[in-house]
Amino acid sequence: MAKGGAANLAIDGERLWDSLMEMSKIGATAAGGVCRLALSDEDKAGRDTFIRWCEAAGCIVRIDEMGNIFARRAGLDDNLPPILTGSHLDTVPTGGKFDGALGVLAGLEVMRTLEDLNYRTRAPVELVVWTNEEGSRFSPAMVSSAVFAGVIPIEIAKARTDKNGLTLGEELERIGYVGQEKVGRVPVSAFFELHIEQGPILEAEQKTIGVVTAVQALRWYEIRLTGQEAHAGTTPMESRRDALLGAAELIQAVDHIARGAGPLGRGTVGFIEASPNGRNVISGEVFLCVDLRHPDDEVLLDMGKTLAAAVETLSHRYALGFDFKQVIHTPAVTFDEACVSMVRAAAERRDYTHRDIISGAGHDAVHLARVAPTAMIFVPCRAGLSHNEAEWATSEDCAAGCSVLLDALIAFDASMAKV
Amino acid sequence: MAKGGAANLAIDGERLWDSLMEMSKIGATAAGGVCRLALSDEDKAGRDTFIRWCEAAGCIVRIDEMGNIFARRAGLDDNLPPILTGSHLDTVPTGGKFDGALGVLAGLEVMRTLEDLNYRTRAPVELVVWTNEEGSRFSPAMVSSAVFAGVIPIEIAKARTDKNGLTLGEELERIGYVGQEKVGRVPVSAFFELHIEQGPILEAEQKTIGVVTAVQALRWYEIRLTGQEAHAGTTPMESRRDALLGAAELIQAVDHIARGAGPLGRGTVGFIEASPNGRNVISGEVFLCVDLRHPDDEVLLDMGKTLAAAVETLSHRYALGFDFKQVIHTPAVTFDEACVSMVRAAAERRDYTHRDIISGAGHDAVHLARVAPTAMIFVPCRAGLSHNEAEWATSEDCAAGCSVLLDALIAFDASMAKV
Repeated sequence: MAKGGAANLAIDGERLWDSLMEMSKIGATAAGGVCRLALSDEDKAGRDTFIRWCEAAGCIVRIDEMGNIFARRAGLDDNLPPILTGSHLDTVPTGGKFDGALGVLAGLEVMRTLEDLNYRTRAPVELVVWTNEEGSRFSPAMVSSAVFAGVIPIEIAKARTDKNGLTLGEELERIGYVGQEKVGRVPVSAFFELHIEQGPILEAEQKTIGVVTAVQALRWYEIRLTGQEAHAGTTPMESRRDALLGAAELIQAVDHIARGAGPLGRGTVGFIEASPNGRNVISGEVFLCVDLRHPDDEVLLDMGKTLAAAVETLSHRYALGFDFKQVIHTPAVTFDEACVSMVRAAAERRDYTHRDIISGAGHDAVHLARVAPTAMIFVPCRAGLSHNEAEWATSEDCAAGCSVLLDALIAFDASMAKV
Repeated sequence: MAKGGAANLAIDGERLWDSLMEMSKIGATAAGGVCRLALSDEDKAGRDTFIRWCEAAGCIVRIDEMGNIFARRAGLDDNLPPILTGSHLDTVPTGGKFDGALGVLAGLEVMRTLEDLNYRTRAPVELVVWTNEEGSRFSPAMVSSAVFAGVIPIEIAKARTDKNGLTLGEELERIGYVGQEKVGRVPVSAFFELHIEQGPILEAEQKTIGVVTAVQALRWYEIRLTGQEAHAGTTPMESRRDALLGAAELIQAVDHIARGAGPLGRGTVGFIEASPNGRNVISGEVFLCVDLRHPDDEVLLDMGKTLAAAVETLSHRYALGFDFKQVIHTPAVTFDEACVSMVRAAAERRDYTHRDIISGAGHDAVHLARVAPTAMIFVPCRAGLSHNEAEWATSEDCAAGCSVLLDALIAFDASMAKV
């Protein structure tokens, strides 16, 4: 086996699908989704199954102090830094079968295929499961890849609490997944992550493969508008200070700001809380969260400034006080050009329809990109739905994504040989 | 004492104030407000105190099957239907010292004054405390005056439950306030109710007395907008079906509709619930309640039609499904012209600044107006605040309202003599 031969390696799409369906039984919900919250009993069961499968595929499993699992297949030159692939097994409370699990089990299918064909890569290949990617139970999301990349200190990550006050560290211990290995061994040769798109673009354009070139930047804002609680029946319109009326203008402003930033701008108010929230009481206070995204850091910065100005303006118009703060900012990430090219070339060679795409969501790959050449592969998901029990991807698309992942890994491995 | 002499009757403003302050200790909150929920232990304590005070003022107390309390002072012709005055002693959870209590204790002050001066009215005068006016614990509001006026059957009223599943009937029994008297003896000669305005108009115009000519009509709507839950980062702006964005337009439409209905129109969205209400999720569903009011039934009907059309329009614009229903409609009430004139004349004679005003809120007087000539008197409250621990009225204004109440009662009594 040598370069050029990679296109002949065939994964077993049915085996991949069976593993996806088997994994989705762990934490299955009545509505066909999955609830496998990080470090829950279901997460432990998912991890146990994953490790059993990896060991059966001939991998050596190690676990680090954040509970990240690494299943290693030795390389011809086993001292080379490993090529990593993987994703996560935790889900949101009403999640689906594919978000995270696809990247993990496609990685497993790659390992199984390499093993079946007795294909030896030059560098070792490691399949990783990142702990608590979703952030549903312990914020922030992607916390363990962040520790791996040196973005968040491990003590802070382990001290994060869930809504019942349990810490991530305690729960990791409870399910028996505190490993021996220090978090964040470098160097890593490369990281490839396969994921469903979580958006509607590939499906709408009937493309099988999304060649992910970048992850857009994100800014989150928390805004509190303060008016005057008053009686809906007795207070004339002109003497009102209605915080919800101001919030309505703000929600529309966010939409305008995103649309004004070209086709790649995103702006959403997803969370709103009015107080006292009474049917016949004018709102004295409204709290809302704004999510702005754009692939260009400069454009996103401008969007944030426009938002701040809009809040200022509407506060005058509606005689409201306000508190405005940015609570999260993650800059844009551009993936490694060589890795991205390998993904694109693999899609070409396999004759899959494809397009370059920018990830709208964050992924562990964002953190890995800080410490290793990184790329991602997207496959379509039905109606763009994700974080939803109805989340769905076809077995054909899953297999296609897995094949591209395999080819990209092999191509990267071959490129290492050239150096 | 005879007609013309009424203006010389002087109430004791200090005694009224002391009684108000004394009553406000029952259920007093740390922030200076009152929590005396209907049929709670605090409500029982308030009722007990009230009855003790009435009996000390020479009244005979009866209680009906809804727990409404009637303190009677005999008339010269004790077979005449009584002239009623009163209000309620229950409060909202974070209520104030004046809403309800002022009308009750001003009535008591009238009784005390008549007794002190040994003034005999021709008709008997009865001071009434209506059970569960606020509706905070048992909906609907004003339920016992509604039973009194034959609007709601007593069985239905007694079966209303609080959030713990306790019925109004059970709780009435528990505090020992199920009386012998059938609810809704008619005829009643007249009903006068003194209340704080619960709005900012009198204070803004520096008027002491509001001569309440009518209560505006009200319509409540429940609207559910249905879009598509989706990821805030991955879903392009043009493929969204954002229910909260539609709701924002609806909130603004309600404001426009009210302002378009002249100075007396009111429109409020006070209650909103977005789902799933996640920071990075486009809202799949928003539920909101709209409160529209106007003194003219026809105008209000048109406002409701405009609202329905606005929902239809925005559902198309944002590709939303919707469910639109009217859940409450109370027509406008015009108070009895003769009774209103007596209130106005009393304010004139006492040299109080005054203006005619339309009540924006519902009151027990709305139901009483169905069975007897009825009028209301408003006094200013600070900043228009009510249903609020900071609710406040000055002792001067309370005394002025009480004096007008006394004079109006005497004038009505005198008018009965003329017939």
